[in-house]
Amino acid sequence: MNRGLFIVFEGGEGSGKSTILEKIYNWLIEKEIDCIKTREPGGIKISEDIRSIILDPANTAMDGRTEALLYAAARRQHLIEKVIPALNNGKIVLCDRFIDSSLAYQGFARELGIKEIYEINKFAVGEYMPDLSIFFDLEPEEGLNRINKNKEREINRLDLETIEFHKKVRLGYEFLLENSEHKIVKIDASKSIKDVFEDVKNIIMLHIE
Amino acid sequence: MNRGLFIVFEGGEGSGKSTILEKIYNWLIEKEIDCIKTREPGGIKISEDIRSIILDPANTAMDGRTEALLYAAARRQHLIEKVIPALNNGKIVLCDRFIDSSLAYQGFARELGIKEIYEINKFAVGEYMPDLSIFFDLEPEEGLNRINKNKEREINRLDLETIEFHKKVRLGYEFLLENSEHKIVKIDASKSIKDVFEDVKNIIMLHIE
Repeated sequence: MNRGLFIVFEGGEGSGKSTILEKIYNWLIEKEIDCIKTREPGGIKISEDIRSIILDPANTAMDGRTEALLYAAARRQHLIEKVIPALNNGKIVLCDRFIDSSLAYQGFARELGIKEIYEINKFAVGEYMPDLSIFFDLEPEEGLNRINKNKEREINRLDLETIEFHKKVRLGYEFLLENSEHKIVKIDASKSIKDVFEDVKNIIMLHIE
Repeated sequence: MNRGLFIVFEGGEGSGKSTILEKIYNWLIEKEIDCIKTREPGGIKISEDIRSIILDPANTAMDGRTEALLYAAARRQHLIEKVIPALNNGKIVLCDRFIDSSLAYQGFARELGIKEIYEINKFAVGEYMPDLSIFFDLEPEEGLNRINKNKEREINRLDLETIEFHKKVRLGYEFLLENSEHKIVKIDASKSIKDVFEDVKNIIMLHIE
């Protein structure tokens, strides 16, 4: 049996990747292509347990490297319990954020080191690097504007970072576009949802034919 | 101010390292040498939280690499909150197990790879490698005999491993003795407590003079 296809959706806050992921999922289901959608921690008990330590407001003393190791641990378990079984069943896996998020946010923007964050994540994911990573590129100001307009979306810790931080995240993704060993494709996320959906559909079609 | 001295006690189950650590600590206090004794997770809340995930009997699905990343995360936080502040105050830190335990147990005996476990732990500890690692060498059969005789000692998960596993752990430590970048000294832990105490005292005196 063929291994499925591991497609991850990446980008800054408010870049529309989660909205488009949902639409891509529905489109694939309509085409009767076997697929799942997921995001870390993905309902995996161990990963949820780890995430609750990361997000616990009492854990203000948490060091940046401790946090990076915890994210990698949660990623590993989600991969083992949910992503790999689906890939082994030949499914397409659509995942909202994966290793590139850690590289751009923690490695680059938080300055823990791209190489260092890559190493611990490589340990976590082994051979299961994304087959395709789609980077939703958008001016950080525009992304944050979208979030502020969308009252239903829950504000998270990252939304509260400075605009400078979000600009560094974008530079981090730009760095990955030039230097990543796995395939990353940039799309212009400033377009309408309809147009971005078409662009992503076209990219994915090139990979599933 | 001089940085203190980071001394770790390593070895298999029942090797007597914790008993000797206690005696060394009391001896140093008597000599009015500023020191602390500790062991992971060391009462650090975040590290205790992480440990409770590792030990949760409900988490049977835990992958070996997830576990290794969690141990490294707990190690990092214990180091940041407890070990480094003491070293920066010029103290001697006596620590019951550290990076060599992960290398021998997870890297070597569980076959996750010495190099791989080294990399994630190097990320966790940075420049804070042990100044001195004392390996308590003992036949695994003898170590397990001692544990079985000592009714007061709590049986832990590792005690329930097969004798073959404990033999592999010992081989792992032997490998480290040959290949480690930080200093490891082997002592013969089959001697009496009194004699082992003298041997360890002599080794430590060479480092604190």
